[in-house]
Amino acid sequence: MLYTEIPSQRPVTPLLDTIQHPQQLRVLERSQLEQVADELRQFILYAAGQSGGHFGANLGVIELTVALHYCFNTPDDRLIWDVGHQAYPHKALTGRREQLVTIRAKDGLAAFPAREESEFDTFGVGHSSTAISAGLGMSLARRFKQDPCHVVAIVGDGAMTAGMAFEAMNDAVAHDADLMVVLNDNDMSISCSTGGFAKHLAAIWESGQSVNISEDGEAFVQPHPEWTYNSRLHSAATDAADNLFKAIGFDYFGPFDGHDVTQLSHVFDALKKRKGPRLVHVYTKKGKGFAPAEADQIKYHAISKLDTPASTSTAPKYSDVFGQWLCDEAAQDNRLLAITPAMCEGSGMVKFAKQYPERFFDVAIAEQHAVTLAAGMACEGVKPVVAIYSTFLQRGYDQLIHDVALQNLDVTFGIDRAGLVGEDGPTHAGAYDYAFMRTVPNMVIMAPKDENECRQMLHTAYLYKGPAAVRYPRGNGLGVEIQQNMVELEIGRGEILASFNIQQDATISILAFGSRVQAAVEAAEVLAEKLDVAVRVVNMRFVKPLDTQLIDQIADSTHLFVTVEEHAVMAGAGSAVNEYLAQAGIVKPMLNLGLSDEFMHQATHGQMLQQAGLDVAGIAASTEQCWLKQSNKAVC
Amino acid sequence: MLYTEIPSQRPVTPLLDTIQHPQQLRVLERSQLEQVADELRQFILYAAGQSGGHFGANLGVIELTVALHYCFNTPDDRLIWDVGHQAYPHKALTGRREQLVTIRAKDGLAAFPAREESEFDTFGVGHSSTAISAGLGMSLARRFKQDPCHVVAIVGDGAMTAGMAFEAMNDAVAHDADLMVVLNDNDMSISCSTGGFAKHLAAIWESGQSVNISEDGEAFVQPHPEWTYNSRLHSAATDAADNLFKAIGFDYFGPFDGHDVTQLSHVFDALKKRKGPRLVHVYTKKGKGFAPAEADQIKYHAISKLDTPASTSTAPKYSDVFGQWLCDEAAQDNRLLAITPAMCEGSGMVKFAKQYPERFFDVAIAEQHAVTLAAGMACEGVKPVVAIYSTFLQRGYDQLIHDVALQNLDVTFGIDRAGLVGEDGPTHAGAYDYAFMRTVPNMVIMAPKDENECRQMLHTAYLYKGPAAVRYPRGNGLGVEIQQNMVELEIGRGEILASFNIQQDATISILAFGSRVQAAVEAAEVLAEKLDVAVRVVNMRFVKPLDTQLIDQIADSTHLFVTVEEHAVMAGAGSAVNEYLAQAGIVKPMLNLGLSDEFMHQATHGQMLQQAGLDVAGIAASTEQCWLKQSNKAVC
Repeated sequence: MLYTEIPSQRPVTPLLDTIQHPQQLRVLERSQLEQVADELRQFILYAAGQSGGHFGANLGVIELTVALHYCFNTPDDRLIWDVGHQAYPHKALTGRREQLVTIRAKDGLAAFPAREESEFDTFGVGHSSTAISAGLGMSLARRFKQDPCHVVAIVGDGAMTAGMAFEAMNDAVAHDADLMVVLNDNDMSISCSTGGFAKHLAAIWESGQSVNISEDGEAFVQPHPEWTYNSRLHSAATDAADNLFKAIGFDYFGPFDGHDVTQLSHVFDALKKRKGPRLVHVYTKKGKGFAPAEADQIKYHAISKLDTPASTSTAPKYSDVFGQWLCDEAAQDNRLLAITPAMCEGSGMVKFAKQYPERFFDVAIAEQHAVTLAAGMACEGVKPVVAIYSTFLQRGYDQLIHDVALQNLDVTFGIDRAGLVGEDGPTHAGAYDYAFMRTVPNMVIMAPKDENECRQMLHTAYLYKGPAAVRYPRGNGLGVEIQQNMVELEIGRGEILASFNIQQDATISILAFGSRVQAAVEAAEVLAEKLDVAVRVVNMRFVKPLDTQLIDQIADSTHLFVTVEEHAVMAGAGSAVNEYLAQAGIVKPMLNLGLSDEFMHQATHGQMLQQAGLDVAGIAASTEQCWLKQSNKAVC
Repeated sequence: MLYTEIPSQRPVTPLLDTIQHPQQLRVLERSQLEQVADELRQFILYAAGQSGGHFGANLGVIELTVALHYCFNTPDDRLIWDVGHQAYPHKALTGRREQLVTIRAKDGLAAFPAREESEFDTFGVGHSSTAISAGLGMSLARRFKQDPCHVVAIVGDGAMTAGMAFEAMNDAVAHDADLMVVLNDNDMSISCSTGGFAKHLAAIWESGQSVNISEDGEAFVQPHPEWTYNSRLHSAATDAADNLFKAIGFDYFGPFDGHDVTQLSHVFDALKKRKGPRLVHVYTKKGKGFAPAEADQIKYHAISKLDTPASTSTAPKYSDVFGQWLCDEAAQDNRLLAITPAMCEGSGMVKFAKQYPERFFDVAIAEQHAVTLAAGMACEGVKPVVAIYSTFLQRGYDQLIHDVALQNLDVTFGIDRAGLVGEDGPTHAGAYDYAFMRTVPNMVIMAPKDENECRQMLHTAYLYKGPAAVRYPRGNGLGVEIQQNMVELEIGRGEILASFNIQQDATISILAFGSRVQAAVEAAEVLAEKLDVAVRVVNMRFVKPLDTQLIDQIADSTHLFVTVEEHAVMAGAGSAVNEYLAQAGIVKPMLNLGLSDEFMHQATHGQMLQQAGLDVAGIAASTEQCWLKQSNKAVC
């Protein structure tokens, strides 16, 4: 069935309702699987409409999920969903159907598989391309324990370009591991897939041959039915019977229609009879069964809740501020080249990609390569800008150190989604970038207090002749005016942004970083009034190099220092201030506010900030408490 | 010529001596290249004997290097040497021949290519598998500048298994980049290559076909001469004409004899006439031309100087302490599995691999996969131990956060080569691991004061039910007795190790971490006598969780805190102490000693420690200076 609307009422799903555990799926006749799939699709449409969240990928794996749970003895057999944003049907079939409307909300189901949520969620995930490694680990461990089971890693074609998937396939062959990889080929990551691998998959389809498997597990080649492979790559089609997977040592089966649940169930049953590393190539359609999503796969990668009010914020998103800056900077400097690891839309680069296609490099999901590619470009005197989420830069960390910073190369990093990220939860938290970057020599690290400063900082980082990063949060700016004219900031200079009650002698100095500057100002006003002390707020701007001159200047008159940041306290920006105070022999009470030493579950960004004590009330309360404690000690 | 001894006198090399710049090589007749190669080999044998250092790989690429500089217009054409320990012949041909005897020494040539050393060193390197990304960046930048040049990345087969090489190949095809990759296939990384990729290379050789290229750049297939492929993989040989490189979209040429300099020069000249991504597969022999090295390739990966005195230290290396612990722990717990990313020898695992082959997993150069493989294993109730160098763990950082720590999985990390690493220089410095690990929730991080504590800490980390790391330095222990009986340490507890002049009121408390504990004790004795103050030294043992109880206990009686660590001061262990003091409201002067915010050039480990002020004299001097400054301020 092809649906055209997201239902606002829970659909009637009589067969699906009988399934609280996959065991109840497995007793059905094979001929009933299509109905299960259809009901599940209707339910997913409804549930995603209630909760918002990842969408297209989930609709694409309905039949695959039904067939897998039908054929494999889950949870003892291990299913590992790569990336994890394709796991809604899996959650629905494994006892969590009616909770699915709560997905991504505070205290609701997690956005991705999570081990603590269900024994069916064998491996927590959020970043791509981990499933083959994890599955290989499980398979080898179970073999070692002489308690073998089937292990199936379900991996999208977009995720397959990331190097660690290749590393894991290489190693699976080394150990002749009993491991099945389902290549869920929808010719997309969030954007369209790109590169030699995507061309190769297109070539396999175009060969017109399929490696099928008989009931007793024997492989045989047959022509496969005609396909319209949704691809920009047709022209590259060649005969490629000996394909990449066979070359690396996997048994290859497919390509198969990923929406033919009956055939899939036969294939999986037959494959259980084989050993060793096996790859099953299935073609699915992102957004399958929902007409608008089939028509615009990028837009429907994720959706908002049906009842979401139109955003009240007229302020631009930080990613759009980045995208606009990129276009403007490119217009005035023809050395600028921009790189994204498969995050063109998320990073706000759509306009740039259209305007400057020859200067736009989507390198696929390949963060390691993205960073070193930039390093190579910088060696030739052009000026690369890497747009990357904080959490994904963790994948390119060695390259940041070894290829960029060590050679002091002129690479600009636009680090998006820094800090807490709300509904995506802990896998996507951008909570560690200050720490892992500031320990590295040669790095310059900035964090803007608002969207205008973000633009100016990006310009500053771009002009700086060395590695420089601007990290900015998910979501909207504050609504301030954005100066079109770009002005270079002085490297390592902050600003005293606000002072309250300056006639008082006792003074609290709040050194605030990035997204917490505005909240610090508001908290300062509260504190000044309540405690009758002077409070000044510094917009530090630079995590590295710190504005030590400014700190020196205010040190004598400060009785309590407070640092505030949307980052782990451990090794964060406040910690950098501590180091400087120690070095300068400034011995004063200090309160470091930031994220505590725990992974935070998903909620809205606002809820998470409150929980972390980083909203206005939290900053004011912590500071007040510390002030009173210090005053009692009479240290000040 | 096959040589059997490393000459102690500089050999006579009349033709080589005429080459100060590759331009002088390029005017020679093609027929003279063999003599150049032979003289270069003799010279490299001599020079490596003088300097010590990487050896086998350099002997293997003599002919390749001569042919490349003969055919390409270096330095304007870009040669990028992957890993970089194959670059001695390149350095010798590019104006640095007579300096080669100083390689790896303080103020001598760098161990690897280094951009600041020569315009011929197009990309600094040390870690593997970066060359294709960097070369692609150069190629795309030069195309964009409309100033194209030839770009050649020379990559070993061992390095090719690392995911980023695959990421880069995928992307090179996306851009149809003019990029040549020379696959230097010697069937080895430092250990033997492993996995599906190695089997595939063997299969290509066994196919008996070679894709050759005519003078005008046309490809043709011919039988290739018989080979003895030095491989454990013969049995896997199959016909594989459509190979992996072609599948991913590269034009493939080879395999060729990598020691036939004349043929290589013809091939490279012909390949210059083609466009797009091209891969040339050559077989070389590690240690070629030196009989002992051909016979034992692992032993001769690197050599010591000829005149190196036998080590005077009878203390075991830390890597051997790790290896022995691994065997002992495995003997008493049959759940232990051990993982190395291609560093069996370096990590001290040879004995374990022999004793427990079914529990030993060499995953090839694949750090990302190594970490997530361990996570997958831990999900199944076995107990994986990952042995990894500090600098290489940077490659598995996201996996440490996202796959291990976030799920609080029971993985033990033995982190070798932490701190300064001497001759390998800044690419291999293990200077950032405290910072990038301690910011991550759930991590336990230990650093031993000596080899016995290292053993006990490894045991403690192993028993701890969650992610735990022990980081230990390169080189030998202190020579203390090693208790065979393993005793679990209390998590998060340090010890007051020494106290001097306790009758004095004024007290310096030195909180020392890992390799700097012993030096701190010696410095403390000096300080106590010289300044007539009390000095106590705490062996902190844990970077995370810190022993806050002990800090509380000594805080009141402390007038100056000093932290000492072999790690960057920025975000390091001392910084963790600062954070705790702030949190606890302990307001005292603090001196953080550690590595300053710069990349340090190679020297001996002792020289580097001295330069960093982390030897006994340095610690004493810095502390004295701070003490006197604080005393003058009368803050204490």
